[in-house]
Amino acid sequence: MTEPLLRIDDPADPRIAGFLSIKERDLTGRQGRFIAEGTVVLRMLAAAHREGRGIAAEAILLLESRVAGVAELLAQFPPDVPVYVAASRVFDAIAGFNMHRGVLALGRRDAAPGRDALIAGLPQSSLVLAACGISNHDNMGSLFRNAAAFGVDAVLMDSTSCDPMYRKAIRVSVGSVLTLPFAREGTAAELIERLQTAGFVVWGLSPRGTADINAIPPAPRTALLVGTEGEGLPETILSQIRTARIRQRPGLDSLNVAMAAGIALHQVASINGRI
Amino acid sequence: MTEPLLRIDDPADPRIAGFLSIKERDLTGRQGRFIAEGTVVLRMLAAAHREGRGIAAEAILLLESRVAGVAELLAQFPPDVPVYVAASRVFDAIAGFNMHRGVLALGRRDAAPGRDALIAGLPQSSLVLAACGISNHDNMGSLFRNAAAFGVDAVLMDSTSCDPMYRKAIRVSVGSVLTLPFAREGTAAELIERLQTAGFVVWGLSPRGTADINAIPPAPRTALLVGTEGEGLPETILSQIRTARIRQRPGLDSLNVAMAAGIALHQVASINGRI
Repeated sequence: MTEPLLRIDDPADPRIAGFLSIKERDLTGRQGRFIAEGTVVLRMLAAAHREGRGIAAEAILLLESRVAGVAELLAQFPPDVPVYVAASRVFDAIAGFNMHRGVLALGRRDAAPGRDALIAGLPQSSLVLAACGISNHDNMGSLFRNAAAFGVDAVLMDSTSCDPMYRKAIRVSVGSVLTLPFAREGTAAELIERLQTAGFVVWGLSPRGTADINAIPPAPRTALLVGTEGEGLPETILSQIRTARIRQRPGLDSLNVAMAAGIALHQVASINGRI
Repeated sequence: MTEPLLRIDDPADPRIAGFLSIKERDLTGRQGRFIAEGTVVLRMLAAAHREGRGIAAEAILLLESRVAGVAELLAQFPPDVPVYVAASRVFDAIAGFNMHRGVLALGRRDAAPGRDALIAGLPQSSLVLAACGISNHDNMGSLFRNAAAFGVDAVLMDSTSCDPMYRKAIRVSVGSVLTLPFAREGTAAELIERLQTAGFVVWGLSPRGTADINAIPPAPRTALLVGTEGEGLPETILSQIRTARIRQRPGLDSLNVAMAAGIALHQVASINGRI
């Protein structure tokens, strides 16, 4: 059972300070705190909290008109997670913009295993999504959503990629950011070296790749590497690894990075019997 | 060669009335007019204009700081298309929001062939993307981008789908909306009937589909049908056609509709030798 609902009438109430102006603060550091938004993401947050994977829910903030509809969802959180409720005017003043969804949670991601520890802990049969230079939170969220759908064991990013724990990336990932192990550190070159040392066959996805994506052979440990939205993977990286391309009609912009990763992950997961 | 640049100093100048408040007007009818935004889309607009496929450029509006960088692009438009230039403050006052891209065109789509005429004119070997109930402009744009990448001959939508000629859909499609034949009319049931009568094998994409997407056989005429973002295709539709699913890990939200269509189109285009 959940605790009684706690009514908030003043946007400056210190109990909901963590939700203040989340739109602006979305692009600043928050000491491991993050904002989960919408019922789909809150469901994933509740699951991650229960499973104790370093993700914890700290507070929930609801628009009063949403309370009745989310009773079953609230019951999935431990009773010591406070549930605050606000009327529309107060809710919008807290969040800093018109939050139509009206369902927010403040969460915390505790220090997670770093890249090398994560690689060391992967099962013998593994599929990794590696990404470098991803700067768009929509694409980041979409990469995680696809990674979860196709059974990826970990998402590993270089340090120039954006933080998947931002509100919009979490939302677009439909909460997969909260459940998929990930690390974001170091350079793409280091990441490739660590993966190869751990026995991964690393495939770089590029319109200039040599193999057709449909011709990638099965392997116990495969890592798929995708690059920045605009330029893709640089030649210095592509020359060190096997490369694959997704055939498409000529003369058009290459596919969106998340779309390309989705097609490739579906293919690699299929041939390795992971889906 | 292009005409001299025409300087605009007053946002109320009648010559640029077509660009006024494009953000608000984006969701209202405009008698076949549309806004193209960014250099990638303008390049597609210039190509469509030259090829005389019922798409015409009427005017271009540039932020003055962008002029030098787009000289080569301007040269691709006929000289009778006026090019207006405005300083940042005036430009934003015209467009109604902060247009960082600073590269806009007003275009016109003339009466295009309807659904039945479009189907009647398709080549013997054809791939069609059919969509019903698509309400999100991002998804619509992404569907067109994928359709173009994988050699789709026409995109056919039911009348409940949103208009692909909206600014955001055109932008997300990287201009494919301007070059791919499409029609948006009638019901999904009518569309299926017309396609089947024309010899198309219609495959509905659904998490509850019976065939694996990788097992769809080649066919001279294939249509892939996708449904609304939330509910997918209704059972009344699915029961009339062959259905395919994209395997994924259980217990997660189904894939985004554009992502699912991208994976399926890549597969169908591959087995039919279209890419």
